Amino acid sequence: MLVVGIDLGGTEIKAGLVDEKKGIIKKISRPTEVEMGNAQVIANITKTVKELAEKTEFSAIGIGSPGSIDRKNGIVRFSPNFPNWRNFELVRLIKENIEVDVFLENDANAFALGEWYFGKAKGLHDFIALTIGTGIGSGVVCNNTFLTGKDGLAPELGHVVVVPNGPQCGCGNRGCVEATSSAKYIALEAKNLIDRYPDSLVLKLAGKKEKIESKHVFQAYEKNDPLASVVCNFAIDALARAIGGYVHAFNPEKIIIGGGLSRAGDALFVPLREMTKKYVMSSFVDTYTIEQSSLVEDAGILGAASAAFYAEENPFSS
Amino acid sequence: MLVVGIDLGGTEIKAGLVDEKKGIIKKISRPTEVEMGNAQVIANITKTVKELAEKTEFSAIGIGSPGSIDRKNGIVRFSPNFPNWRNFELVRLIKENIEVDVFLENDANAFALGEWYFGKAKGLHDFIALTIGTGIGSGVVCNNTFLTGKDGLAPELGHVVVVPNGPQCGCGNRGCVEATSSAKYIALEAKNLIDRYPDSLVLKLAGKKEKIESKHVFQAYEKNDPLASVVCNFAIDALARAIGGYVHAFNPEKIIIGGGLSRAGDALFVPLREMTKKYVMSSFVDTYTIEQSSLVEDAGILGAASAAFYAEENPFSS
Repeated sequence: MLVVGIDLGGTEIKAGLVDEKKGIIKKISRPTEVEMGNAQVIANITKTVKELAEKTEFSAIGIGSPGSIDRKNGIVRFSPNFPNWRNFELVRLIKENIEVDVFLENDANAFALGEWYFGKAKGLHDFIALTIGTGIGSGVVCNNTFLTGKDGLAPELGHVVVVPNGPQCGCGNRGCVEATSSAKYIALEAKNLIDRYPDSLVLKLAGKKEKIESKHVFQAYEKNDPLASVVCNFAIDALARAIGGYVHAFNPEKIIIGGGLSRAGDALFVPLREMTKKYVMSSFVDTYTIEQSSLVEDAGILGAASAAFYAEENPFSS
Repeated sequence: MLVVGIDLGGTEIKAGLVDEKKGIIKKISRPTEVEMGNAQVIANITKTVKELAEKTEFSAIGIGSPGSIDRKNGIVRFSPNFPNWRNFELVRLIKENIEVDVFLENDANAFALGEWYFGKAKGLHDFIALTIGTGIGSGVVCNNTFLTGKDGLAPELGHVVVVPNGPQCGCGNRGCVEATSSAKYIALEAKNLIDRYPDSLVLKLAGKKEKIESKHVFQAYEKNDPLASVVCNFAIDALARAIGGYVHAFNPEKIIIGGGLSRAGDALFVPLREMTKKYVMSSFVDTYTIEQSSLVEDAGILGAASAAFYAEENPFSS
């Protein structure tokens, strides 16, 4: 099967012609031009698809978008990248221009589907995919079923509370794992503490306080920098506790982590694997592995394409 | 479909002839006689089934057993009720005496299936069932799929850590919700604190310290007893945090709670519903309800029978 996968970002539309077996055959990108209004965004998506698949027959378009989406009706409820979109009928508008099936998926769920079709979850019946960047997104396959729950809201593993009365989360609650362990939180916490560690390597790597990013904190963590150790140990311990909970809930074969934070590599994964052991009961030890995503920069396109493969193969039953 | 459901307890075998539509048609019980050895236990199970279904054709036997079970091979890995059973081939031994399909299920998962076939989860595609007694057992249906995970270990929601470095749990970890909010823990915590609250109503209701049970603590909690408030507020807050996590993971329509603790009724459910709201993000508010199981004393038999219905209708795919 051949589909078009669209990674719909706030600044760029990345799209690929994707074969279910061979992966990405061709890819292009184009500015989203959100500031030009909705009609221009739709026109840009249409142009991208037509340019990409000029002389090629394809069976569907899959779109991955951040925010809350209604996959059944092809509606973006709201998205951080498109402030004007409230219950925006994205799928209907695209179908006015291009006559194929169009499927919309949340970017984190699309990432999980991408791992299932093309990544480290290929062939698995039970796995969890996490994208850790500004926020923490998630997708779960359990008993060979892609879980979405009653309202299509599942899973939101980033908003499991792991520190009672902990740091404020963007969702309004406190102590969600997104508020303790996302790249954004790690950078924020390092900034909060930097004045108490004026000699920290974190500051040297970043240049100045305002420029501190999670990657600087992890680079310093590898060199045993005291500030970085305080920040990373807290963040990784909380993430480990969250993952321990997911292991008990889903009994997965793999937990696959992508997104900006995963690029920290061993600095993240080695202590994370060790700390997670503390939070699983003995019967679950050695039942799972925690792995870095291998999809890297193509994760968005492959995920969106996989959402189309999945939707074509599993029509909505109700 | 007509099956025999067996609730296999350490002191009593409770069994029922169960119709998929009509429920329990006939039920009997008999002592398990664990102390008489394995052969006697098997003989007692056999006798119970034969007596129950003397002149009736039935298509399968379902057995619900506490502990860790291997449902695919019909083996009890270990069970608190049968200390001598280690990888005990229960299903094979019963089939030597009775020639029908025999299915084995963990009692908590059986409870969830019982709720699905006969209780408040009838017709639902997404729900969570919890049995809260000495421990906390769980079963989950999500996207109309009964979740068991890679090794059949899922879900173990009682061992999600909700209080970092919290009370010691029987599983070896600390701060599992089972160690903060089970009936056993609530009674234990009240006993631990009773000397500091010598006038507590809990003591009056129980008679003496050694006899304190969770039901006394909840009765006193309803009367605003200070000791009971300390114990119950901690336990219910931790349980609420756990349930908040499950809501994000599974997006269920209902969370159904059975087991000894659920008999506390409103004293448990009213504050639990209120406290859980604190731990779910806004998009999940009003997507779920928390309800008391209605199966009561027949939950074990109906659950075991439902495990047989489910297994007959969903043969193992691999």
